[in-house]
Order: sequence, then structure tokens, then C-alpha cells
Amino acid sequence: MTVKLFDTTLRDGTQREGVTLTIEDKARIARRLDTLGVHYIEAGFPASNPKDLEFFRSFEQPELGHAKLVAFSRSRRRGVAAADDPAVSLLTELSAPVACIVAKSWDFHVERVLRVSPEENLKSVRDTVAYLVEAGKEVIFDAEHYFDGFRANPEYALAVLRAAAGAGATTLVLCDTNGGTLPTELKAVVSRTVQEFPGVEIGIHTHNDAGCGVANALAAVEAGATHVQGTANGIGERCGNCDLITTIANLQLKMGLRVVSDEQLARLTETANYISELVNITPDAHRPYVGRSAFAHKGGLHVDGITQDPRTYEHVPPEAVGNARRMPVGELSGKNTVRRKAEELGLDPGDVTAVLRAIKQKEHEGYHYEAADASLALLIARTTGEARRLFTLESFRIISEKRADGETTVEATIKLVVDGKRVISTAEGNGPVNALDAALRRAIEPHYPELRNIHLSNYKVRILDEHRATAATTRVLIDSTDGKKTWGAVGVSENIIEASWQALVDSLEYGVNGVTREEG
Amino acid sequence: MTVKLFDTTLRDGTQREGVTLTIEDKARIARRLDTLGVHYIEAGFPASNPKDLEFFRSFEQPELGHAKLVAFSRSRRRGVAAADDPAVSLLTELSAPVACIVAKSWDFHVERVLRVSPEENLKSVRDTVAYLVEAGKEVIFDAEHYFDGFRANPEYALAVLRAAAGAGATTLVLCDTNGGTLPTELKAVVSRTVQEFPGVEIGIHTHNDAGCGVANALAAVEAGATHVQGTANGIGERCGNCDLITTIANLQLKMGLRVVSDEQLARLTETANYISELVNITPDAHRPYVGRSAFAHKGGLHVDGITQDPRTYEHVPPEAVGNARRMPVGELSGKNTVRRKAEELGLDPGDVTAVLRAIKQKEHEGYHYEAADASLALLIARTTGEARRLFTLESFRIISEKRADGETTVEATIKLVVDGKRVISTAEGNGPVNALDAALRRAIEPHYPELRNIHLSNYKVRILDEHRATAATTRVLIDSTDGKKTWGAVGVSENIIEASWQALVDSLEYGVNGVTREEG
Repeated sequence: MTVKLFDTTLRDGTQREGVTLTIEDKARIARRLDTLGVHYIEAGFPASNPKDLEFFRSFEQPELGHAKLVAFSRSRRRGVAAADDPAVSLLTELSAPVACIVAKSWDFHVERVLRVSPEENLKSVRDTVAYLVEAGKEVIFDAEHYFDGFRANPEYALAVLRAAAGAGATTLVLCDTNGGTLPTELKAVVSRTVQEFPGVEIGIHTHNDAGCGVANALAAVEAGATHVQGTANGIGERCGNCDLITTIANLQLKMGLRVVSDEQLARLTETANYISELVNITPDAHRPYVGRSAFAHKGGLHVDGITQDPRTYEHVPPEAVGNARRMPVGELSGKNTVRRKAEELGLDPGDVTAVLRAIKQKEHEGYHYEAADASLALLIARTTGEARRLFTLESFRIISEKRADGETTVEATIKLVVDGKRVISTAEGNGPVNALDAALRRAIEPHYPELRNIHLSNYKVRILDEHRATAATTRVLIDSTDGKKTWGAVGVSENIIEASWQALVDSLEYGVNGVTREEG
Repeated sequence: MTVKLFDTTLRDGTQREGVTLTIEDKARIARRLDTLGVHYIEAGFPASNPKDLEFFRSFEQPELGHAKLVAFSRSRRRGVAAADDPAVSLLTELSAPVACIVAKSWDFHVERVLRVSPEENLKSVRDTVAYLVEAGKEVIFDAEHYFDGFRANPEYALAVLRAAAGAGATTLVLCDTNGGTLPTELKAVVSRTVQEFPGVEIGIHTHNDAGCGVANALAAVEAGATHVQGTANGIGERCGNCDLITTIANLQLKMGLRVVSDEQLARLTETANYISELVNITPDAHRPYVGRSAFAHKGGLHVDGITQDPRTYEHVPPEAVGNARRMPVGELSGKNTVRRKAEELGLDPGDVTAVLRAIKQKEHEGYHYEAADASLALLIARTTGEARRLFTLESFRIISEKRADGETTVEATIKLVVDGKRVISTAEGNGPVNALDAALRRAIEPHYPELRNIHLSNYKVRILDEHRATAATTRVLIDSTDGKKTWGAVGVSENIIEASWQALVDSLEYGVNGVTREEG
């Protein structure tokens, strides 16, 4: 048996409060999911959201290697042909080869919310699916509220599925839209439904309102479902969707199903963290399989056990999902890790104990080197005395003003010594860090012309202890690129300007020294 | 059938990285759990942790109205009588009427980690339980690694349980210590075990390493277990324990078991949040049943449905667990949402079309009102002409400096008119926004003394288009509190200082006008 993975992070996942993704973020996430080995990527509801439409127009099927791109819509409205309902016909204009169509399968809902007759709803399903199949699309059918519907009127719920299957839908997805069904009942309903549709793929779409989103997906697979919908890290409306990350690991490592390759499974942790970053949700350290604490052994007894044999306290090998065992003492702890990291960065770690001590101190202050290779390399190089400073700072001053007419202006002045010369430079910007970056570059670019090719590509701010409000510690992450490589730098301070300054200096210093090394 | 709730937040829960509780915190949590209707409260491992011993000596059984206090320990060491093993005999000196004794039930573990013979392990279990029963304790027996043990050697796993039951243990708890067992297998093992022990209570202790902590507890109850162990909000080592909060709601509202009274169930949300506060973990808004977002309806279609009939999109009534329905205003909002939101905020929405247009324009610029009720209320009030400004800004200027000695300083000067008077004020801070907040308060506090009670409680920064690096648009969210209520405000600009300024002004304006409204 094979099970198809259907990811809806970019559609249902964005229903989570506070999540908004740019078109570029969506493209980056889609590419990562493709690499992970997901079979379908549902990327939006183009008829409802202009930004989703723009996405489908700019990011087309050929950009994906393996996964199929899916556009979502609802079945046609009452009294119009599918071809005349723009929410439906729009899908035929997109490159996405798959259409996912939702319709209600709970008669109570059909009459109370849609206010159409049960018959009219069946016709709408039939017409919509047939029209899209005719237009060459693979059609996946989402039966909304299927479990509540089945509980209330099983005949009607099945009739809705029959309408979709009869019109050519390849997959019938049973949705627990309210998220309130428990595994035993869900499994029985899936089992009955699978029997009714020999030869048609049955899918499952669950939510986590009863804390059973993942368990329900697994129960459905045991009952014969061969298509699982979910989102990365379980993000979604209310209590979230089925977490596809946990589900993939369970299906492959516990239920003996090969849903992705071993190499892809080993990218699970990295993928989960990458998507957390892009949706700007602090990764939960306690997530199954991929959390930072998922294989952390605190109790002394556990540590002893692990030392005897990892199977004593680990349900799977952490490497299988790209995670690592941790014995929380420090963070990037262990001399071996530092030695490996230094090698990876092409550096001589020198006195590993001293480097480890420096890292631990920085991490204690709130620095985080996972996404900041440049700062880590510089920290090692500075500890071993290998680093080469681009300049010596004398001082800088940033003046941010808001005038009576509402206009804001920012101006930065920097004084520094570069190549033995004292330079003073001033620049404006649209924010304090932007102005500071401009003034610094103006001062040192004549001495380091390669800076012209180095651009900051990303600027992230995370408040570490948010409850301390504006007095909180701030961590700034800056990504830079020379068009070929990308590197990250980190800064930490109670003052966002100081934190940004640290990351900025590391970014440029690593960029210049890296480039120099390559040329030399 | 009745099911007993066994809470181990104060013992297994504290294994979570970063959690440490004072004795006073432990007492407060125990009292709350007692009020919630939990049957057993396991409060620590006194032989292993001196603070736990101190707790058991200062907080005694009579402090609880309903729950029984439980002290945890392990079975006696090899070669000593139970009475001569202080880890065991200590329990007889405490007021806690219940002893929970853990021992291994996986022969691999017994030989590899304990390095004793399987026979010796059985003897240790028998002696320890018998000694404590003799001393008048109710003994609950935790069979560690029961599911792995049963998989490897069912006869030995059952023999360990038989040793405990034969010596007088009232409850045999099957522990999925690694947290890696899935519900179907777990249910089969529980079912077989229940058959082997007629008349003895079977308990379940699960972890969340496969994302099935709660589902596994429910599966065990379906298989005949009558005792469920878990922790508040699922805190615990690695990926956490079974979340007892979610489990209570599922048992009572979905499985028809009366584990607590209706009044107690209605305290579930409050209890979960209270314990989050004391263990100092930001409450996850997306927790089942008790999260802030658990009954939040964002999609326009959902809001319409809820307005027709709450059962359309809610799996249980939020009041049943002491939670509340919320209609966050998001990108997908319609007029109904705005009207309902205005009502909720006690405002006349006036021209709803104009308000909706204003919201959409702001959202297009990057504003986000889901977590910013205060800014939304002010936006509505400003559109309808109801808002009252606290002051008129003339200008402000912030100077951020970094000196040659590495020291950074920030100073803000603000000029404004309040109550017809022109005021100039200057303040320092550890960052630009902190300094600006201080200067603004210094200028207007004499006119609005209520500001003294209003504090910023949270400051979040989100870079919207991070790839534009330091030229990107920034969204700032500020939460404020007057000690009773909390409200959120938002600001957006390419300049982080301008964005922070907007959110700051909204925070204070809403705080003062809200307070005024209450008094009037």
C-alpha cells in the first residue's frame, strides 16, 4: 500500500491567526515541501484571495520536481453552470494540474448555512467535478463535515461522495472540519466508507480540536485511507490541522509505509524548522520527532540508560528524522560538535575548549548560531586570533525624527578608521538600521570594492523575553548574499540598534573575508 | 464506569527543560488541581529531590479537599530489605496516603540498565509493595516501559504486574515511557492486560513522542483502563506527557464519562492558564479546548455559519470548558464580522461599509488586527468620529549613539500639546522605543494619572518582507495591561520607530479611554 501526502500549509495552514505569507515565502515553502517528497502541494484559494491568484500565476507547475500543484475552490453556486461560476472556471486557466473542490456533506449544513436543497447540492458537486475533469484537471474532492454528516445522515453523506466519484473525482477526502471526532469513531466511519468505494482513493483531513489530529489520520490509514492531508507543524485555524511532519515520521518509522525516501525523511527536522522561520512562529521545542527537546535526556537515569544502549530511552533513532540527541548541559555542546563545525567552515578550531567556552557564554546571552554560520565562523576565528577586522569603529550616531507634518526622517553618522585612515560618513535611510548600513558602506566601500556585490537579503527580529516589553532582549538575524552563496549573522542586545549593528558587521566582515579567501 | 484522574504535573511535569517550581508554587498548583476535581496529585519524588521532601513536610494531606496526595519512589534496591532502603521507607514518614512505586517491566532494561536478574526485580517489586501496604499506604504501581516490555517478552511484563498486584497494589499503571507506541497497538496490549487482572484497576501513563499522548490515553480507557495519568497542558520531558486538560474534556464531553462535575469542567480553561503562568510557559493559544484560538473563527464562511448556528463550526460549546468564542478580524473578514466585533467592543459601527473599507486599506498596508483589538476599536472610533486623542504631537527626536568605548546610549525628546499646553520632555532608555515610551509618559502622565497603572506587557516585531532586508516593512505589536484587562495594538511602517510609535500611542489611548469609559 502507498499513502499520498497532501500538504495544505499554504492554504489551510494560513488560516492560523497571525500567519500571512508573501508570494516569495510561499514559493520557498513549496520548493522545500517538494524536496521533502510531499505528493501534493495545495497552495491557495485563488478565487477568494487575490494574493493566491498572483501566486498561481507566478509560480507554475514546472517549478516543482515531484509534487503536483493544487488549487483549491468550492463547488459551483446554485443556479449557475460550473463554467459560468468564476470561482470554478478560474482553475482551468491555471497551470496547477490538480483542483481540490470542497462541498458540504452534512445535510444540516446544506440547509442551514448554504440554504439550498440537498438535491441541488448534489447537482452542484456533480457539475463542478465533471466540468473540471473535462478541462483536464485531476480532481480531489473534500467532503466538508463528513463525520458530523455521517453521524446525522449517513445516506446523504455517502450520496455526496457518490456524486463526486461518479463525475470523475480520483480521491474522496473525508474532512473532520470541526476537529472533534475521536479516533475509534472516525476509524469505523472511514472503514465503512472505504467499503462503499472500491477502486477510489479515500483521503483524510483532520484537525486538532480534540488533540487527536495525528492519531485520527493514522486511524484512517489503518482503515484503508491512502491519502493524508495536513500542514507543516500542524499550523491551521483554531487548534490547527493534522501535523504532517509527525504523521510522515509515524507512517514511515512505525507503520512500515514508505511515503518518502530515507534521505528525505532525514530532512524532516530541517524542513520543519525552515517553515517555522518563514511563517514566523517560534519552533516549539517539544514537537514530536523534530523538536529541539524531542531527544533531550535530562534525568540522570535516562542519560545512563542512553549510554548503555540508546534503545532504552529513544523510540526511534534521532538521525532518522534529521534530529540529534541532546544531553542538555549546554547548547552547541560537545567538543566533537565544535570540531566538526569548524571543519565544515574550513577553519582550524585551535583550542577547542576555549572555543566551546566562548560559544556557551554567547548562547547564555541569547545568541543562537543555528542560522548564523557567519557569526559562528567569526566567533571561532576571533577566539583563535585568525579574524581580520575590516575597520575600527570610533562611534556612530543615529537621529530618528518625526516632524509635526507626520514625516519621519532618519540620518546616521559614523566615524571609523579603515586602512589607517579616519573616515566620517553620513547617510539617510528609511529606518535606523537602513541608515546605519548605508553610512557604514559609504565609509568602507572604497577600501573593499567587493562590498558592492554583497547585499543583505533578509532581516529578522525576534524579541526573546517578550513580557519585558520594550526593555526586552532582541535578537537580530541578517542573511546576506553575493549572488552565489548566502550566509547568516546574529546580534543580541537590549537595544535593537546595537543588535542589528553586530549582525551587520559580522555579515560584511564574513562576506569580505570569505570572498578574499576564495580569490586567494 | 468511573475513571480516576491522576495528575503528575508536580513530578513528571517538572522534568520539562526549564521548569522549576518553588514550594509555594507547588502548593498553589495542588490546590487548583484539587478544585478542578482531580483524584490523585503526585507531588514529587522526595527521596531524590530535597525540595520535594520539604514540600511533603509542609503541605500535608488535610490541605486538600478531595484529591489524594501521592509521593513517588522506585522499588527497593538489590540486596536490602524495603524497610532498610531509605528511598522506600521515607514514604512511610509522610502524610501522603498514597505511594506510587515505579519498577521496570522490560527484561532488556532490567538486565541492561539495572543489571539485576529478572527474578531479583520481581522480588524487589513484591517486597516494596508489601512493605508499603503493611505501613497503611494505598500503593499505585507504575510499570515502566510496559509496552516495549510486552512487545519483547509479554510473560515477563505480566509477571511484574502480578508481583505488584499479589503484594497488594490497588492500581497497575501501564507506562509508555518512551512515548513511541501508537494507539492501535497500545489498545490491544491494554485489552489483554485488563483480562489478566479482573478486579484490579488498570491505569495508563503516556507520553507525546509520536504526537499521540492524548489519543493513547483514550484508547486505553476504551480498552478498560480506569485510571489516567497526565499533566496540565501536557508539560513533561522531551515532547511532554499526556495532556490531562484535553483528556478530561474528551472523557467527559465526548466519551460520556463523568470524571468531574459540570462546574469543575467549566474551570478547565482558567486552571490551564493559571498553571501555565506558574510554570512560566506562555500559554499556547492553539491548545485544544482551552487555547485562546480554540474557538476563534476567522474565515468569512465560518463566521456566517456560526451566526446561523454554533454547531455548524464548533465541536463543543466553548462555555462548557470555560472558554469563549472569538471572531478575530482578519484578511478574510466581511461586514458581519465587523458588526459583531464592534458590538463586542461596545462601539456603534456606524457606516459598516466605510469601516470595512478602512480596515481593508490598513490590512493591505500590512496592519493585522487579529491580536490588536485596541487598534481596531480606535480605527472604528476614528472612522465614526468617536475617538478622542490624548495629545497633539509636534515632533520627536531619538538619538542613538555608540561610542568608541563600545557603550551605547539612547535619548528621546518629544514636543507635544496636551490639554492646550505645550510640553517638551526628554528621557533615556535602553533602546529607541523604550526611550520614546519614557519621554511620552513623562510628558502626558500629569494629565492622565491613570497611565501609571498601564504597563506594556509584550512587544513583538515582525518584518513583513524580510527579503527587502533593512528596507523592509515592519509590523510592531504591543500588548498592554492595567492589571485586570489586556489589550493589543499594532503599528506598521518601513521605519521600526514609526511602527512602534503608532502601536505605543494606540496602546495608551485605548487604555486611558477604556478606563475613562468604565469610570463614567
